[in-house]
This record gives sequence, C-alpha cells and structure tokens, in this order.
Amino acid sequence: MPKLRLALAQTNPTVGAFEKNSARIVELTREARDAGADLVGFGEMSLSGYPIEDLAGRPSFLTASRAALERLAVTLAEAGLGDLPVLVGYPDGPFEPRLEGVANAPTAIAQNCAGVLFGGEVAARYAKFHLPNYSVFDEYRNFIPGDELLVLRLGDVDVAVAVCEDIWRDGGPVSRVSSADAGVLFVLNASPYERDKDDLRLPLVRRRAVETDAVVAYVNIVGGQDDLVFDGDSLVVDTHGEVVARAPQFLEHLLVVDVDAEAATPPEFIEGVNRVELPRREAAREAIDSDVAELADDREQVWNAIVTGLRDYVEKNGFPGVLVALSGGIDSSIVAALAADAVGPGRVYGVSMPSRYSSEHSRSDADDLAERIGLHYRVQPIADLVEPFETALGLTGLAAENLQARVRAVVLMGISNMEGQLVLTTGNKSELAVGYSTIYGDSVGGFNPLKDVPKTLVWELSRWRNEAAAARGEVPPIPENSISKAPSAELRPGQKDEDSLPSYDVLDGILEGFVNQRFGPDEIGELGYDTTLVNEVIAMVDRSEWKRRQSAIGPKVSQTAFGRDRRLPITYRPGN
Amino acid sequence: MPKLRLALAQTNPTVGAFEKNSARIVELTREARDAGADLVGFGEMSLSGYPIEDLAGRPSFLTASRAALERLAVTLAEAGLGDLPVLVGYPDGPFEPRLEGVANAPTAIAQNCAGVLFGGEVAARYAKFHLPNYSVFDEYRNFIPGDELLVLRLGDVDVAVAVCEDIWRDGGPVSRVSSADAGVLFVLNASPYERDKDDLRLPLVRRRAVETDAVVAYVNIVGGQDDLVFDGDSLVVDTHGEVVARAPQFLEHLLVVDVDAEAATPPEFIEGVNRVELPRREAAREAIDSDVAELADDREQVWNAIVTGLRDYVEKNGFPGVLVALSGGIDSSIVAALAADAVGPGRVYGVSMPSRYSSEHSRSDADDLAERIGLHYRVQPIADLVEPFETALGLTGLAAENLQARVRAVVLMGISNMEGQLVLTTGNKSELAVGYSTIYGDSVGGFNPLKDVPKTLVWELSRWRNEAAAARGEVPPIPENSISKAPSAELRPGQKDEDSLPSYDVLDGILEGFVNQRFGPDEIGELGYDTTLVNEVIAMVDRSEWKRRQSAIGPKVSQTAFGRDRRLPITYRPGN
Repeated sequence: MPKLRLALAQTNPTVGAFEKNSARIVELTREARDAGADLVGFGEMSLSGYPIEDLAGRPSFLTASRAALERLAVTLAEAGLGDLPVLVGYPDGPFEPRLEGVANAPTAIAQNCAGVLFGGEVAARYAKFHLPNYSVFDEYRNFIPGDELLVLRLGDVDVAVAVCEDIWRDGGPVSRVSSADAGVLFVLNASPYERDKDDLRLPLVRRRAVETDAVVAYVNIVGGQDDLVFDGDSLVVDTHGEVVARAPQFLEHLLVVDVDAEAATPPEFIEGVNRVELPRREAAREAIDSDVAELADDREQVWNAIVTGLRDYVEKNGFPGVLVALSGGIDSSIVAALAADAVGPGRVYGVSMPSRYSSEHSRSDADDLAERIGLHYRVQPIADLVEPFETALGLTGLAAENLQARVRAVVLMGISNMEGQLVLTTGNKSELAVGYSTIYGDSVGGFNPLKDVPKTLVWELSRWRNEAAAARGEVPPIPENSISKAPSAELRPGQKDEDSLPSYDVLDGILEGFVNQRFGPDEIGELGYDTTLVNEVIAMVDRSEWKRRQSAIGPKVSQTAFGRDRRLPITYRPGN
Repeated sequence: MPKLRLALAQTNPTVGAFEKNSARIVELTREARDAGADLVGFGEMSLSGYPIEDLAGRPSFLTASRAALERLAVTLAEAGLGDLPVLVGYPDGPFEPRLEGVANAPTAIAQNCAGVLFGGEVAARYAKFHLPNYSVFDEYRNFIPGDELLVLRLGDVDVAVAVCEDIWRDGGPVSRVSSADAGVLFVLNASPYERDKDDLRLPLVRRRAVETDAVVAYVNIVGGQDDLVFDGDSLVVDTHGEVVARAPQFLEHLLVVDVDAEAATPPEFIEGVNRVELPRREAAREAIDSDVAELADDREQVWNAIVTGLRDYVEKNGFPGVLVALSGGIDSSIVAALAADAVGPGRVYGVSMPSRYSSEHSRSDADDLAERIGLHYRVQPIADLVEPFETALGLTGLAAENLQARVRAVVLMGISNMEGQLVLTTGNKSELAVGYSTIYGDSVGGFNPLKDVPKTLVWELSRWRNEAAAARGEVPPIPENSISKAPSAELRPGQKDEDSLPSYDVLDGILEGFVNQRFGPDEIGELGYDTTLVNEVIAMVDRSEWKRRQSAIGPKVSQTAFGRDRRLPITYRPGN
C-alpha cells in the first residue's frame, strides 16, 4: 500500500471576505506543501464562510465566489503551489433556478461545492448531494443538490470527495465510494458545535470508514459566525475505524497525516461517478507521526465555544470592545469573564448602575469582579434618572420595575453610542425561555453569550472557570458571592427570582424536556415533574415568543437553541 | 353533465385554536348544507391555522390535531351534517421521522393533509405532495411529502383533492388528475397575500383547469397570522378557464357554485391514485347564480392587507387596544389611521412626546390627527426626562439624538405596561432597510404595520385613504400637512431625512431592485441609478441587518419582506 500524506486545514473564514479567506488558504497550503503533503483540504465553504444563507440567492455573490475560486487557483500556481491539489469549499452559481415559475419567489440558484485547484486552474468540482434542511440549516432552500460523486486519481490512489451532510445519510455519495473502490474519502465540513455532538460525529465517521473500506479524512472549519460556532475537531480515521489523527477544537490548525491508502485498480465506469486524474508529485520524505488531540471536558468545551463565538462576532464585525452592565449577579459576572477570555480584559468595559433597590452586595460584588478581571469599570447610579419618569408617568408594579431596567438600557446604549463598544446582553436561556426579562431593558445588546446557557449551567460554568484559574495559580475571575447568593433582579425590595419562578433546578429540567428534547407535557410529566407546573412553564415559554423574536443572537451550544433552530409562531392559542 | 353544487368556505383560523376553528367549520358547514351544497371545502390547515412552523415537530400538537379532526367529524354528524362531505386542512402525525439518525436534529414527523369528513368519520385523507421551501415557507423542514392523489367519487362525479403548492408545480398530483379523468379538482390553500400575486395565481388556476379538463375549485383561508396575511380570493374556474365564482378578499365568506362537472367513467386502477367512494345526497334544488367578486385596486388591497394583519394580531393575541407615538409625521399618522380601521378609534391610544427640537407643526399635526380620527390622545413632553441623562452622561452627536428616541421608548413602554395596549412601531421599509432608526428607541413595539411598506408607498396609501374618506363624505383621517411636509426625525435642530439619505424616490427605486428583486449592484445601475450611490445603499442595507433581527414583525405585502422571507447573516464582510 502506497503512503499518501494528507493535510487537513481547519481555517476560520469570514462570510463574504473572499480575499481574506483566500489569503489564509494560500498560507496554509504553503504550510501543507512544506510538510510534504500530497493533497490539502479545507472545510465546507472555506472560501466564502458558512452559512451564507440567502446570499446564495444573489447572483452577484455567486459570481464573486466563482471568480474568487479561479483567482485563488492562479494565485496558488504563482506562489509555486500549483502542483499540490487543493480542495476548497465554495458556493457555485448562478445556475438556472431549481424550480421554474413557482409563484414570485426565487428558488435555489446555487450549489454547495468543493473545488479542486491544481495547475492554476479549477481542475474539478463536486456538488453536495444531501442538503440539510432541519435544525439551523436551510440548505434545501438555498442550494440545488448535486448528483455525481467525484473521485480524484492522485498518482495511484483514488480519493473520493464529499461534503458534510453527504456522509450523514445512507445512499448517494457514500454508497458510491465503495462501488468506486476509492482508498480515501475526503469530506469537507462546516459542522457547528453543540454539546455531545462528538458522540454522534466520531462514531459516524468511524462507521463510514469501515463501511466504505476507505480512510476517511474529515475536515471542519472553526470559528464563530453569528449564532453558530464551528469547532474544528478535524480527524482522520483508518479503514478499521481507528482515529489516526485529530485536530484541536476551536483553533485554526493544519493536521498532517500519512495514510496507508489502498492502491487504485484500473478505473471502471460507474454511473454517477466523475473521475479526474491528477499527477502525484514525487517527494522524498520520512514517515511522520500525527497529533491525536484530546477533547476537553464538557464544561471547558462549552466555555470555549462561547468564547469563540463572542470573539469572532466582535472581531469580524470590527468592534473596538464590549460593554456589559454589571449587577454583581452571576449572569453579568460570567459574561464579563467570558468577554475577558474572548477579547482580553483591556477591551471589556463594565458599568454598574445601582438603583435605590440595589443591595450593598450588588455594588461590592461588581467592584470585586472588575478588580479580579481587570476590566474598565465605572459606576452610574440611576435613581436620579428614574425619578423624573416616575413623577411624570405614575408607574407602579411591574411597569415601575421595568422602568428601572429600561433606564439602565438608555445609559448603556448612550455609552455604547459614544464609545463604539458592542453591548453584551446577559439573559440566560432559562430567563429567555419564560420571558423573565424586561424587553428594551436588560435585554438590550447586539450579542448574548448566555443565550443558549440555562441558569444551572451558568453556575456550573462559573465554578469550572474559577477552578481552572485556581489550578493555574490565577485569580478566579468570578466572585464567590456572585455564585452563591440567591438570584434576584433587584427591581423591588427583597425580590428573588424564585418568587416568580420555580427553582432553577426544576425549571431547567422542564425546559430541557420541552425546548431541547421537544417533549410534550405528558412526556415531561413522566420525568417526575408536577403536571400543573409543567403546563404553566410551557404556557410561559409559548407566550414569550414575541420577546425572543426581538432578542440578540448568541452562540448555539445545545441541541435546540432559540432562534433559527426553533421556529415558532408568536400568535398561538392552544386550548381555544 | 350532472350539476354538482360546491361550497368553498374561506375562514380565518387561529394557530392552535382547534376548538374555535372547529366551531367555525361547523357553522359554515351548516350554511353550506342550507345552501344545498354537495361538498364543502375549507382551506389548507383550516383546522389548526397556518403556518404552524415547528409546532409540526411537536408530537403532542399533532396528536391534538388528529383528535380535533376526529372530534369534528363526530360533531358534524351529531349536528345532522354527517351526510355532507367536508374537506378540512390539518396537520397529521406524528409519523416516523423523514430521516432517521441524522445528527441530533429532529426531521419532519408531520404531513400537511386534507381530511374528508363524512358520516361521523374521517373517510379519507390526502397528504400534500409538493412542499414549498422558499420565500416565507419552510414546508420541507416541517412536513413529509405525500405520494398519492385522492379522488373522491361523489355520486357520479370524480373530485380530485390537492393542497396549495401541488398545483404550482408540474408533475405529481396535477398530472394524475388528467389520468384519473376527474371532473373537479378541489384545491385547499393557505396562500399569503402579496402585491400582484393575483397576476400569477389566477392565470395558474385557469391554466390548470384547461390542462386537466377539470373544474378547479380553489379555496384559500383569510386573516393575519404574525407576518402573513391570507387574502381569501377563493375562486372556481371551469374547464374553459373561465372564472365562474369568486369570493372577496380578506373576509370570511362562503362561496356556493353550481358546476357542470363531467360524469365519471368506470374507475380504472392508476398507480398513485387513491379512490374513495361516497354516496351523494339527493337534493331537489334550483340552479343558482354565483358571486364573482371584483378585486379592489392595488392601494386598497395593500391597505386592507395591513388592516387585516394588524387586526388579527391584536385580536388573536387578546390585546385591549394599541398605543402609538404620534410625531405629527406621516409614518405615525398613517399607522394611527390603519389602527383605527383595524380595531376602531376607541381602541387606539396616541401619545405625543415633544422634545426641545420638536417643531410647532409636529405637535399641532398630531393634535389634528387625533381629532380627525377620534382616538385617545395625551401629550407627554420629554425635555425634563432627557435632561438628567445628558447631565449624567455628557452625550453628544448621534448618541444625543438617539437618547431622545430612547427616552420616548421608555415612556411608551411604561404606558403600555400600565394599561396593556400593544405598542405599534412605525418605521417604514425604507428606514428599516438602511437602518435609519434608533434601536430600542423609535423601533420599540410588538407589531409594525409599515414594516413592508416603503416610504413612497406610505405617501401613496395616505393619499388614497384620504381620497376614499372624502369620496364617502367622511373626514380624511390624515392631516394634509403630515403628507406634504419634508420628513424629519427632529432629533436635532432643522434636521431632515434627506440630509442623511438620498431622496426617497431614488432610495426606494434602489431598494426595489436590491431587496425586492434581489438584483446585484450592476443590474441596479442599469436601471439608471448612480453606481456609487447604489453601492452605498447596499452597504447600508447589509450593515443594518443586526437591527432588523431585533425588529418587530409586520405584515408582508411585497414580493420580498424583511424577516423569514429574506434570511441573511449579520456578520458579512464583502470586499475583504
């Protein structure tokens, strides 16, 4: 069996930034060449970023994408890299619409493609067969499916090419890999992180390797794009299903690996298989050992996913820093700690806005946090700002409580408008689920790091982060008192969250069933929760959809995040 | 040819309100029976409301839907209506997921069905073949396609049944209607209004009637559901393509029509056709003439669509009234007029919030509007509320301008929280496109009647509404001065919109190309617009996506509305 050296390049592309993404591809291709690779592959849509959503419907965007791919082929050749085959993911088009004459509405005009760059040209292309159209994915909306497997003959090894979802489904490309007798299956992915997804992804890749009797090279992009975080975790599995190389999560990385690929037999014609032959560069080299990265524990993975999503939202959108309202509570404290890990404490601005109902500890815990993290910090009391509204409007009850949250929002947005920072909002998933927040008040902001983090996980992550700091001999960023005290919005004297809500253990248990697992009330009741309470919680979730529609985006880390992952009507009247 | 009497019942269902929707179906079935109908058909998803979005993924919702359908069959029989076949649209399930073992994500478990109720039972069901997954539709996400045409033999006439998208595409059910030699094709629809859609819908129905040599009965639902407005406009077309009956737009209606349907020949077995035979009730009756409603002109249709969408959002969600900030400008004035038409002036609450920069006319025009419409009106000056923020924060420039808009938002939300009204926001589509608004300021509110109405159309509609009032001898609701004065946000002295934006004629022309037609910059330039300006406008639209994500919903009236109709990334860096 001849040895083939593969390079899997996990990059962090920005949507629409063809030039910047191309430059990074050239850099890593050079590294791959220097490492003696025979083939280098980048992730799905690595040229354009992913997901491009309805940009796939703009002919001008597709034309730019195709032009960028052709330019990249030339640039690589000019850089002396033209003899190394490069697999790059990109959207191709515009094609004739998938459906003609359907209403006024455009249907897909693009394909989700892998291009093979070689000798200064686009030597071959492959279009994704299976288009995911569930969860956060709208690919059937945006793309025309492909219908042909690509097999590259590289010297004497056959390398089949597929894109992401193609290996998640039986039939289609996967079944043709075996028929075509390919020695390697190279899969380009843009697979977003979610907790425990690795428990599905890794066994799948192993199963496909054994089934197809091909070495599977799985390359994934990294980085944040709006509400999604791509975690990399690229890997290579041999035909016995053993992991022979694995890249770290969340970081750009070039994974180089020698694989014992089966030599190709004389090619046979197979319906639905496009064969392309490329010369293989002869390179004298010694066998190398490859890295097999270990996965971090679950809490560390979640932390890193959020940090990555936040950092990339800030950097890709060009914000100088972030601004957080610090209440001394756990949510704003953990958000400040996440922000400091994402962009450095010097770019984190905190503002404490005590009201007449704020406890002494809310101010002192915020001070303590600011000191621990070393962020920019100011205090702006709000009593004198609230009072004129009370006098003018005579607000009472909930309206008076909301008023305080909204006055804080005006202060926060005023500072942001003057100084340019991105406002981070800090409502956790439990609050967002039941609508326990003031719209246009504590919900204001462009990005919400906790959007997909239930309150009980907020506590877990805080403890983990403090322990990790202590283990490294650093100051734990989050004040112990912020973790241990009873949560309160402090919008009236002595208020506690648990006056209005069940305990967070119970609430999060019900929400896990209803939101994440999509169970009905009976199934949740069977988990041991009180049926009346379950129905109350479900009603709260259904009724607060309108608030979630106007909420900031935040990184998906669970099976079912709020947002495009869970699309529900606002107007919904069950039981009528 | 035997005469068949068809009844098309266009109802206004509420999503999830199975009982209320069922009760309305019983009422109209009785009316149809009293009118001597042989068959009555309701719209797509008339039992559950439409669209149900990811409720289609909740097993408990589907179980409730199926149970409601079975209960409805019994109720009809108990009411003595069991011998009249009733076609009702509903979601059926739960079925095995369309795709097994795909990631963690659930795939469709429901079908979009038409049930035939007869004799106290569900006598037959049909599942929609073609699932629209473009524009506002996510049906491939939510449903499993059907694979069999239903043909009901009713006495000696064959009636084929299809659902909405099925007739928009060649192949599938439509092609089998001819093979099965059916005399009538009864199509259940939930087809949302958009301008000029009738220019597509009517010719399509006529073409299908001629092609299939069947009378086509097209029944559509009416009413607002979040951002969609269903316009009814149910119609019956004979085999020559002539319209023989047509219901009005936007109103519930029972359209009864005698059709000369071809007698059925002995049924032949056809692959993919499910035949069900029902007895036909013998009824002595005289031929009737049917209504053929005329379509209103374009501006009136748009006005009625918005009024319907707004009314149903208010009523279906149970708001006592609506609250609007009145600036004396055209946007808030037309919103007040729309609201008064939707829910009556007695449920419209206006508040004028003059600042130190407000012109004399902004106050007097608001007073005039309130008087013309007869709405509840109050004045709350904001200078004393703004001043403490200025003192505390030292805001200048845009931050100071935004401050005023945000203080108004705090006032508005305070009143709404005290009194319970729905806050209407008034940003038109042109502003929303280029981000010309203050987030958490003038953008606050739960519903935006102008969300899909460009500024130039705001003026057109205002003039039309005033003329319509004058023609009826009523007071024109909108002050002439609000229509004719130059638009201004009045956030600094002497400010005019056109200081920051191109003239609205030009802006709306560019936006029509970019947003509605999805043209690129070159195609828009070819329409005669300056290329530099076109690129500036496009950049403004792309950059303000984050604001639109947090904006209130509003009724779709154009080909491409903001929201689920146009899904774009926030993080998008073209030219990088």
